[in-house]
Amino acid sequence: MSLKVTAISELVGGNVVQGSEEVEVTGLASLNEAGAQDVSFLGNEKYYQDFLATKAGVVIVPAGLSDQPAGATLIEVENPSFAFGLVVKQMAEGQRSFKPGIHPAAYVDESAQLDASKVCVRAGAVIEAGAVIGDGTEIAAGVVIGEDCQIGRDCLLHANTTVRERCVIGDRVILQPGCVIGSDGYGFELVDGRHVKVDQVGIVVLEDDVEIGSNSCVDRARFGKTVIGEGTKIDNLVQIGHNVITGKHCLMVSQVGVAGSSKLGNYVVLAAKSGVTGHVEVADQVVIAGASGVTKSITEKGTYYGMPARPFRDEQKKLIAVERLPKLMKEFKQLKKQVEDLASDSE
Amino acid sequence: MSLKVTAISELVGGNVVQGSEEVEVTGLASLNEAGAQDVSFLGNEKYYQDFLATKAGVVIVPAGLSDQPAGATLIEVENPSFAFGLVVKQMAEGQRSFKPGIHPAAYVDESAQLDASKVCVRAGAVIEAGAVIGDGTEIAAGVVIGEDCQIGRDCLLHANTTVRERCVIGDRVILQPGCVIGSDGYGFELVDGRHVKVDQVGIVVLEDDVEIGSNSCVDRARFGKTVIGEGTKIDNLVQIGHNVITGKHCLMVSQVGVAGSSKLGNYVVLAAKSGVTGHVEVADQVVIAGASGVTKSITEKGTYYGMPARPFRDEQKKLIAVERLPKLMKEFKQLKKQVEDLASDSE
Amino acid sequence: MSLKVTAISELVGGNVVQGSEEVEVTGLASLNEAGAQDVSFLGNEKYYQDFLATKAGVVIVPAGLSDQPAGATLIEVENPSFAFGLVVKQMAEGQRSFKPGIHPAAYVDESAQLDASKVCVRAGAVIEAGAVIGDGTEIAAGVVIGEDCQIGRDCLLHANTTVRERCVIGDRVILQPGCVIGSDGYGFELVDGRHVKVDQVGIVVLEDDVEIGSNSCVDRARFGKTVIGEGTKIDNLVQIGHNVITGKHCLMVSQVGVAGSSKLGNYVVLAAKSGVTGHVEVADQVVIAGASGVTKSITEKGTYYGMPARPFRDEQKKLIAVERLPKLMKEFKQLKKQVEDLASDSE
Repeated sequence: MSLKVTAISELVGGNVVQGSEEVEVTGLASLNEAGAQDVSFLGNEKYYQDFLATKAGVVIVPAGLSDQPAGATLIEVENPSFAFGLVVKQMAEGQRSFKPGIHPAAYVDESAQLDASKVCVRAGAVIEAGAVIGDGTEIAAGVVIGEDCQIGRDCLLHANTTVRERCVIGDRVILQPGCVIGSDGYGFELVDGRHVKVDQVGIVVLEDDVEIGSNSCVDRARFGKTVIGEGTKIDNLVQIGHNVITGKHCLMVSQVGVAGSSKLGNYVVLAAKSGVTGHVEVADQVVIAGASGVTKSITEKGTYYGMPARPFRDEQKKLIAVERLPKLMKEFKQLKKQVEDLASDSE
Repeated sequence: MSLKVTAISELVGGNVVQGSEEVEVTGLASLNEAGAQDVSFLGNEKYYQDFLATKAGVVIVPAGLSDQPAGATLIEVENPSFAFGLVVKQMAEGQRSFKPGIHPAAYVDESAQLDASKVCVRAGAVIEAGAVIGDGTEIAAGVVIGEDCQIGRDCLLHANTTVRERCVIGDRVILQPGCVIGSDGYGFELVDGRHVKVDQVGIVVLEDDVEIGSNSCVDRARFGKTVIGEGTKIDNLVQIGHNVITGKHCLMVSQVGVAGSSKLGNYVVLAAKSGVTGHVEVADQVVIAGASGVTKSITEKGTYYGMPARPFRDEQKKLIAVERLPKLMKEFKQLKKQVEDLASDSE
Repeated sequence: MSLKVTAISELVGGNVVQGSEEVEVTGLASLNEAGAQDVSFLGNEKYYQDFLATKAGVVIVPAGLSDQPAGATLIEVENPSFAFGLVVKQMAEGQRSFKPGIHPAAYVDESAQLDASKVCVRAGAVIEAGAVIGDGTEIAAGVVIGEDCQIGRDCLLHANTTVRERCVIGDRVILQPGCVIGSDGYGFELVDGRHVKVDQVGIVVLEDDVEIGSNSCVDRARFGKTVIGEGTKIDNLVQIGHNVITGKHCLMVSQVGVAGSSKLGNYVVLAAKSGVTGHVEVADQVVIAGASGVTKSITEKGTYYGMPARPFRDEQKKLIAVERLPKLMKEFKQLKKQVEDLASDSE
């Protein structure tokens, strides 16, 4: 996909203040990586030297620059970052090529319900018996949709994702490659020295506008539902245990784990590598810092940190104290010596 | 799948003490989530208010309740939790639909050995040359079985799992979606500034009754075998390095990592996010707490905690001390002042 | 694949000092696991008892042994470990069976560019429009190569890997099963209480000789490129965020995470479960210990440890101090008592 300078300046409401309106670009890049085929932007003064040295074909700039790189076409706007975002969006739309139809190398069970003129099923995808796929949804190559699943409208299931039987996915849901929805929860009972599987007959519900990252896993409920609330965005390699219920608009960054039956409120943020133990509740708007571990319910909004996770200030106080500990130990020795001297003096 | 009240009460050996024997349910749910199509249970007094307010069609209850929700059909039993488990099991069996046969959209190499009348291979599965599949085993959509693999009887390989060449899987093994058995171990030698791959020519052996979670990885041995012992259950996103040998009936919860050549005894439990370094041994019945790290061999059974992991009590003592450290620092200052006063008094 | 003793002794430049040159072996094993079909080696004196008891058919040994197991054929060499490595390599080459050709059960879009006589595409693989595949490259079963991807020569993409659209992969790159190259970066803007997706229109570049472990994820750049530098080897279940740039010959062990826009120098080592936060730089030859977290840029080479990661010695000093803290607390109490006694004496 290529964009002409005229199209870009129109899109962002800018003025071409240097160079040619006929230039075309095909890529987007930062100032120091861009070449003649790329459009870039100057969003922050600290990149001014990069700007002067850039080889970008086109640069979106703020007004009032004293100097310019010779070769580049410049488009002046009020807010270059925002303007560049519009160009990114335009490029993104140009790149996504939704072509309705079922590829001949896909397999769709005859009892699946979908409108082949409004759904895109790519080569190597498998849609099993009884599944229902909403209009505008794309099922990429290698995706497996299990029996009786319900997938909403305008979803995008990337390559090699798995949705196991009976799970329910809302509208505009995005699944990144390799993620797994509806694997069995981890439940066993020890009987005569052997771990006997506790049947996991529930499902997973992903509400509208959820996104799940690549190779993340959401386990089905033992019975009932595991629920990822509307608008919640989950990063890569995240584990969600059985019967977890998350609120709306939560964020869970990469390598987070949430153990079985825990409940998250709305707008909860779990930073990278943090964890939540099983059977606890986390209140609305709680933020858990990276690599921290929630070991009991949190009822007040705020930022929590550490293992176990505690209010940020308390934990910080502790960490500062630990930092000073080697010094304390030296001072303690001195004080001890001083006390001994005093004691011997007073004898 | 639907169940009539008569079938349920027969299954659990209960008595219908309220409502109709003709009611049918299709789902299972907790008291506060259940609707008219669901069967639920009252397993614990603390859910009594939920019970009174439930909209469940059918509830399995203990004897001697003083009050009941009006609309529900009630089945009285001695142990409602156990009885409900039987219903869950029945539903689970109804849901699993093992249909022998090789789907026309699967690919099975002609040199693979399996009895098409006793094995289920779904659409999009690939079974490569020389692989052997036992009777009663289901190979789901998108699964890849590499050359010369041996898969036992009554296994269930969920969608998009990969078993690389020559690996050996016992009977009744379950692989959740996306897991990888037999990827190369991580081994390199630095030669002239480049990391040169150390060939990984061994295999993975999963013994009988093993379960591996979704998107977990078990690396093949450099040579010889990586072994997951009989009855061991591994959760999602777990990493098992090359030449690891685990005992029987171990549990490894989500996001655990075990590095190369380490050996676990029998009944070892690794809680979520914990890790075991390479080339160490962990004795039978050792429990490693969540997010802890085993850095050297552990020879005594017991619970270990922390990074590095140490006996639970030692680590706890240390943590309590750290907790009190800010207070200690205040007191130290006071004491120092007091000693200085004493010193100046005694001058 | 089988090897005769004559072939082995020729390969390693050794002498058959016991047993028959006609013996054939098919496997490799350590002394205590080997059977009559296996070749093993005595690389270290501490395994001498294992050597005497071994059931290996063939053992590669150093000169000057006083005693031998009766049944084994022995090949004497100068350096048994090195010699055994040569046998492993030979076996590995025998095992890899690159057979050029596009399997009839694969799907290759007609606009993809590859030489079917020089590329191996296995059953169930999908290569989408515009993709380019270099000679000598193997695309295993279930792999999905997105539109307009460029894959170099002599690569090995194992089963069920995903490379999303437009990503660029160099020569001799190995992707272990299930890994994902080019998933969307994790970027959202909060608008009116909803997380709105920030388009991710960049790509991933894997330079020559990179290896990516099973179920690892490398996110595409927001715009521009995420780059994994030449010769870098990444283990299983690792997360690389958008716009990360790694230097050459880095090592990242299992379950590592590197957040968006961070830059690693050359020869950086991130041990298992460690993490690097976003937007920082890590200098050449920095080693981050297991489970440590880099929270700000590191400009000096060396080993760093802890959360946050600090120079190894500083962190170790702190840890030793913490270890002694319970003892300090006891001593503090005693000292306090002593001071009180002194104070009351001096009254």
